[in-house]
Amino acid sequence: MIDGSIQTFPLTLNCILDHAAKWHPEVEVVTAGEGDANRRVSYALLRERARKVSRVLRDFGVVLGSRVATLAWNTQTHVETWYAIMGMGAVCHTLNPRLTATQLAWMLGQSDAKILIVSADLLPLAIKVAADASRLERILVIDGSPGGENAGTAELLALEPLIERAIADFEWGGFDECSPSGLCFTSGSTGAPKGVTYTHRSSFLHTLRLLQADVLGLKSIDTVLPVVPMFHANAWGLPFAVPATGGKLVLPGRHADGASLARLIAAEEVTIAVGVPTVWLGLCEHLEATGSQLPSLKRIIVGGSPMPPALMERIEKRLGVPVQTSWGMTELSPVGTFGVMSDTVRNAALSGRPALGVDLMLADANGDPLEEQREQEGRLHVRGAAVIERYFGQENSAITAAGWFDTGDLARIDTQGNLMITGRAKDLIKSGGEWINPAEIEAVVGALPQVSLAAVIGRSDHKWGERPILLVEMREDHDISDQDLLASLRGRVASWWIPDAVVRVPSMPLASTGKIDKIRLRATFGGA
Amino acid sequence: MIDGSIQTFPLTLNCILDHAAKWHPEVEVVTAGEGDANRRVSYALLRERARKVSRVLRDFGVVLGSRVATLAWNTQTHVETWYAIMGMGAVCHTLNPRLTATQLAWMLGQSDAKILIVSADLLPLAIKVAADASRLERILVIDGSPGGENAGTAELLALEPLIERAIADFEWGGFDECSPSGLCFTSGSTGAPKGVTYTHRSSFLHTLRLLQADVLGLKSIDTVLPVVPMFHANAWGLPFAVPATGGKLVLPGRHADGASLARLIAAEEVTIAVGVPTVWLGLCEHLEATGSQLPSLKRIIVGGSPMPPALMERIEKRLGVPVQTSWGMTELSPVGTFGVMSDTVRNAALSGRPALGVDLMLADANGDPLEEQREQEGRLHVRGAAVIERYFGQENSAITAAGWFDTGDLARIDTQGNLMITGRAKDLIKSGGEWINPAEIEAVVGALPQVSLAAVIGRSDHKWGERPILLVEMREDHDISDQDLLASLRGRVASWWIPDAVVRVPSMPLASTGKIDKIRLRATFGGA
Repeated sequence: MIDGSIQTFPLTLNCILDHAAKWHPEVEVVTAGEGDANRRVSYALLRERARKVSRVLRDFGVVLGSRVATLAWNTQTHVETWYAIMGMGAVCHTLNPRLTATQLAWMLGQSDAKILIVSADLLPLAIKVAADASRLERILVIDGSPGGENAGTAELLALEPLIERAIADFEWGGFDECSPSGLCFTSGSTGAPKGVTYTHRSSFLHTLRLLQADVLGLKSIDTVLPVVPMFHANAWGLPFAVPATGGKLVLPGRHADGASLARLIAAEEVTIAVGVPTVWLGLCEHLEATGSQLPSLKRIIVGGSPMPPALMERIEKRLGVPVQTSWGMTELSPVGTFGVMSDTVRNAALSGRPALGVDLMLADANGDPLEEQREQEGRLHVRGAAVIERYFGQENSAITAAGWFDTGDLARIDTQGNLMITGRAKDLIKSGGEWINPAEIEAVVGALPQVSLAAVIGRSDHKWGERPILLVEMREDHDISDQDLLASLRGRVASWWIPDAVVRVPSMPLASTGKIDKIRLRATFGGA
Repeated sequence: MIDGSIQTFPLTLNCILDHAAKWHPEVEVVTAGEGDANRRVSYALLRERARKVSRVLRDFGVVLGSRVATLAWNTQTHVETWYAIMGMGAVCHTLNPRLTATQLAWMLGQSDAKILIVSADLLPLAIKVAADASRLERILVIDGSPGGENAGTAELLALEPLIERAIADFEWGGFDECSPSGLCFTSGSTGAPKGVTYTHRSSFLHTLRLLQADVLGLKSIDTVLPVVPMFHANAWGLPFAVPATGGKLVLPGRHADGASLARLIAAEEVTIAVGVPTVWLGLCEHLEATGSQLPSLKRIIVGGSPMPPALMERIEKRLGVPVQTSWGMTELSPVGTFGVMSDTVRNAALSGRPALGVDLMLADANGDPLEEQREQEGRLHVRGAAVIERYFGQENSAITAAGWFDTGDLARIDTQGNLMITGRAKDLIKSGGEWINPAEIEAVVGALPQVSLAAVIGRSDHKWGERPILLVEMREDHDISDQDLLASLRGRVASWWIPDAVVRVPSMPLASTGKIDKIRLRATFGGA
């Protein structure tokens, strides 16, 4: 032994809550109350409660590598069960309550979780799931009581009394940092849902990437509201990043409507709020209707779907704060890029640069790198410390021989290194043998002040194969003629890209992830 | 294979320069010119040159694990050789030119480096070193020419012509992230110098810790001047952290006087400047003498020795920017804590909180944790991802069974978690069987506007064992009587702590690290 060494420091996620509890013990995690006072707990106490949950789970047979499922809103107890599961080396399998019981039971069958943790108001769904998930042994109800419900062969218990009786003596960690920590199935918009298995190391390194000043740039003085659900790719990593900095974490529960968010932001003096664009549309509408202000806010972070420039302008004007764009996906843990706030020019269409730890590459249809990587459209590939290698349960790698994951997105990268997503490869419309990119048409129409949401899909056409049609949801009390809608496109896109028809929808169908559900649109409107 | 996986992403330091060269290719690394224009290179070109240096070193027999020494100022070529050495998996052994040739030759013997890279103006020292380092095979001169010098059995070559002839085809990385990347000997103020071996993983994780918004919080728009030398614990990690964010890196070469720094900061529009407190004293004196301003500056970062409150106030007033304090040591890679700039109260005596990845503990003289960790003085212990486990060449661990490294510092931690270093355990003076802490006396005297630097040491005393004496260096054109100096202590420290004598020194002796050299002071003034 002559070379000297540095301490071993396994990058396990329990270290994050340990750090928050030791160095920011009194900082709070707040959950929106249901008609009553917000619920609040300190990091120190949250850690104690989470260690008690680990004890409860151990008593139910959970060991290193066991999968434990959650079907829950963003609440304190959900965060506690997360850290309890991950801290003991079990795998937290988050389920999306907007999916059907059949889909969820299939996912449970895949992960073979024996325990399901469920928000009380999602219990009816959980009971349906249990009926189809024969290997499920226990349902633990959080944020409410199981009442007199019956879950068939699965035992139904309230978690809170078990926490109260447990001892906080569980020792977290002590396993390999490459152990799996989480499992999240993608929405499966192109076939069967695919599971992404996160590891302690990958989510820890993802957290450190987020914390960089040009990414999330969180400070201990910040109060952060993740409206994005914990069942969507770990709420973009915020339940890790916020405790890691010692900031205050504010959880919205199940309500993401404008009035609920406005109340919560004002009451808890939220400085940074994070969610998909449509959430901020609701908040703006509420503020415009009530004339109220949210002076504590410093920044809005958006991601998950393209940011309409008109909405970005509206948010910035209405809230008086800058909007930070981002791009990511479940397979990336999930953040790929973040808009750089210190850049002089910001733009709704730009999703920012990659920070150290993730790398981007544009390829042609064969996956070969474009010779010129700037100002060219290509198929976006990504690699890095928190990027998928292989989907859950699949034998084949999800990456190329050179180590790149094909995102399925089409993108450009400008000379400053900023990413611009230009579409989804699978959403492209093939018309007369040539490609039409719906995203470019949507960007123009979506920027009109009268338009709330716009979507372009291909409709079968006996002559051209497919032709684009435009679907629009209008803003309340606004209107514009079909002719003027299409006129807005002249000179902005090729004339043969201009849609053949305009369809007005009262409410745009959204997928379980909050994005426009093009599968449903195509099923309804895509026929000849 | 059913569980899914995330990509392997070895945390090797070459990734940092790869990232800078790809995503910030045109951002510059600037080196202060010696009487002529500053030298500048882009990250893209710097990476190409560094890869050529790797090729040169490979041709000289350097392989994975080989040690290559550098004896050089902060310059572009020094950065290039760093990345060249580390990128190929060799170990960069940095040498401090303020040590003697005998000390340096001893260190070279320890690391068994066969190649020494040396700044041209340090060549006379290097030649003396070579005379005592029989296994040294080659000296490569950077930033100048070897002239007609002769280095005995070691071959003497200029590096630049070799770079120009080399091909930039070297493939960096591909080795284990726990491979050693650097070696730095401590100043050895308490015995033989001890070597600290950094690894790629430890310095990478250290970099990510620095990048957190509440630590360095660097942004790509920043221009950073590390006045702290690269031979001092990796220049506090800045040659990694700055490229990691895509910021501009400005290197001072060998000149750290006020006039040189003022010129460089103004010419390159430096936003963040980093160095030991005495450096900023020189800068303030220059600015006060010339009446000039440095409008680009946003922040000064200090560390390496206690920050006198009067100097902090003077810098903040003179430069109009906040001073960020820090605490660290070679064994910590080196940063332990950073003052949190967003905190409402800042204080020269506080060194900030630990960020995720490092943890602090106060212990008693036996190394047992104090029961109460806040508002109590104890012996500071540390652990984390970039903290030493075992010194180079030593068999015994440097950490306790519980995994803590004893820093030898005395400290308090306030209720907000802020660290206050209160002294060095080995500097304590034992007088009449009781301890006197020189640091507390120095803090009071050092705060006087007339005093530039103050040091208290123990002098042998036949009655009390030791008694404190005060050594002071006055500010230019300022004076204060001995009586008034000592009067400033009344009511601030115990009356028996008040020094028995005042000694005025024209210039306080500084150790090779820039800290006050108490060993020399004790040797000169410590006798009875």
